[in-house]
Amino acid sequence: MPVTIGVLREAAPQESRVSLVPESAAKFATLGARVLIERGAGVAAQFPDALYKQVEWADTAAAVLDAADIVLTVQPLTTAQIGALRPGAVVVGYAQAHAKLAEVRALRDQKVTSFAMEFVPRISRAQSMDALSSQAAIAGYKAVLIAADNLQKFMPMLTTAAGTIRPSQVLVIGAGVAGLQAIATARRLGAVVEAYDVRSATREQVKSLGAKFVDVGVSAEGAGGYARELTAEEKAKQQEVLDARIAAADAVISTASVPGRPAPKIVSRSAVERMRAGSVVVDIAAEQGGNCELTRAGETVVHQGVKVIGPVNLPAQLAYNASEMYSRNLFNFLSPALKGGELSIDWNDEVFAQACLTHEGTVRHEATGKNI
Amino acid sequence: MPVTIGVLREAAPQESRVSLVPESAAKFATLGARVLIERGAGVAAQFPDALYKQVEWADTAAAVLDAADIVLTVQPLTTAQIGALRPGAVVVGYAQAHAKLAEVRALRDQKVTSFAMEFVPRISRAQSMDALSSQAAIAGYKAVLIAADNLQKFMPMLTTAAGTIRPSQVLVIGAGVAGLQAIATARRLGAVVEAYDVRSATREQVKSLGAKFVDVGVSAEGAGGYARELTAEEKAKQQEVLDARIAAADAVISTASVPGRPAPKIVSRSAVERMRAGSVVVDIAAEQGGNCELTRAGETVVHQGVKVIGPVNLPAQLAYNASEMYSRNLFNFLSPALKGGELSIDWNDEVFAQACLTHEGTVRHEATGKNI
Repeated sequence: MPVTIGVLREAAPQESRVSLVPESAAKFATLGARVLIERGAGVAAQFPDALYKQVEWADTAAAVLDAADIVLTVQPLTTAQIGALRPGAVVVGYAQAHAKLAEVRALRDQKVTSFAMEFVPRISRAQSMDALSSQAAIAGYKAVLIAADNLQKFMPMLTTAAGTIRPSQVLVIGAGVAGLQAIATARRLGAVVEAYDVRSATREQVKSLGAKFVDVGVSAEGAGGYARELTAEEKAKQQEVLDARIAAADAVISTASVPGRPAPKIVSRSAVERMRAGSVVVDIAAEQGGNCELTRAGETVVHQGVKVIGPVNLPAQLAYNASEMYSRNLFNFLSPALKGGELSIDWNDEVFAQACLTHEGTVRHEATGKNI
Repeated sequence: MPVTIGVLREAAPQESRVSLVPESAAKFATLGARVLIERGAGVAAQFPDALYKQVEWADTAAAVLDAADIVLTVQPLTTAQIGALRPGAVVVGYAQAHAKLAEVRALRDQKVTSFAMEFVPRISRAQSMDALSSQAAIAGYKAVLIAADNLQKFMPMLTTAAGTIRPSQVLVIGAGVAGLQAIATARRLGAVVEAYDVRSATREQVKSLGAKFVDVGVSAEGAGGYARELTAEEKAKQQEVLDARIAAADAVISTASVPGRPAPKIVSRSAVERMRAGSVVVDIAAEQGGNCELTRAGETVVHQGVKVIGPVNLPAQLAYNASEMYSRNLFNFLSPALKGGELSIDWNDEVFAQACLTHEGTVRHEATGKNI
């Protein structure tokens, strides 16, 4: 009896991604799985039903939940959806476990085996499963497009018959995956780019992309590829140098986040007030509270002529490629556990062990367990 | 008595440009002219009053019109404003003479000496005065940003841990100044770019920017650097090849226009219907009726999942640089006539002669005169 992999049409507002694109669906089918998709699941991401081959269709989400052994999601299932799962079902997708506590309890109480893509360990072997990274790259790219589209200036330098146009100055704060992609995109567009990260180890990556690294004389390497929090003194020193670079920028792209914590406040109100009117801040960390004091998630705040843009769910705005990458992440995660069309999870594999949120009626993820 | 150059705060909706930026204002002052600016004229273009040096200020448009010997504009003056000009006043700016007939009559009847930036001859010496070109470059750049921001795909190819993302395919129709800048911008962003122009002489320019020239076996070089209109047979041949390239594109940027005539219809409804859902058409020619049959100026039409975007006044969306370039065009045009702070127009200079719309009670521009 082959395993049934279920795919829902994402119901959350503004979630246009789909957890499984035709390419990955066909790969699962080749591994012997039965793939059951709610009609129209890929439409918002520009994957119409006709593109899916070797799959079966369900008219409703309920029909998918009723039949699926494994459910693939982008956004976490609701408690009602969790209640409709089959006994022993497996769920793979984003869990937002620090915020969705009722859903985590429901997964536990329903004895669902759930894997959170956020908890996939950031080890070399698991890079191809790293949804945080793949989606962050999209956010970094899109943030620069938003900045460029909101500036009243060219990004590139132009030499024309009517004289020279100076290039825009872009400051990228945070040189993780999103920040590096933002740097690369702003450089592509011809901007003069500076970047800053508390982890001075990122200096060479920043430079290799053609940007200047802002040196504040403070370093804060942390575990798991993220930054640790800075001391008050370090923050003040960082701030003084950064504020001057913010004031000089036409566009600031801020991407700094610490997992499971509010985003660090790096761009103060007074720093924004030093920027030229017409300048732009695009705060990718808006959903985590923002790197800028003025950020409001989902809104554009105009403060003394400076636009502070707090986009939410940027990957969904590039739903086609975002779904493609996310879907590949899911496939790369799950496929080692599919043998002859049946599910067999190797719990000695640290990838499965660490990514596990709930299993057999317990919360397996330690930090989440403490919140429950 | 030095000449007074007046600058108005542009009153037209969505016109955020200003005819004179601080840099050019200072240059006029250095030539001995008195520069009189309506307060706030540059604010929407991010040139606050404080940036202007060596100028005088007026609280109202009426005060500028009452005192100015020369009025610099972006959009044409209204008939009421023309009525408020001093006897013998000079106006320099866009005239839109084919559409604004009442205004042309008012300029004539008031014996205003008016110069239309659209009529500056496209000769080598006048390139630095060519506002159509400088503003078209801005439109081409901005159109690509709009396309990129509306696609659910990356423009560049990306090689990531989750596999390769294919680059977007961009088709640019019309390889004039706007089209060439669109090609350059889409290439910067990493798209695969094809371009088409009825003037096969543009082939080398297109190729030099890294784009592929679409060869339809039809050429239509016209006078003045524009294309002539094609015959029906030529159009059919062109269309067949083009339709296949349109169908293959993620984004079409159409920039084809013939001066003083409706824009040629190049992107048919049926061609749009062959495009993939999620694809985008950005029709720069929207204000001239559009290159696409589905275009509505100022609107985004979604047809079978394809967005057809008809932007108006794109240069105003990049008001800072657009004003900078337009202002330099005006300065380069007018400065040869300013000697010792006084105005002295050399009517033997073909630039002044050809750019003249009205003078001493007559319409000097031949084609416009026929419409009046």
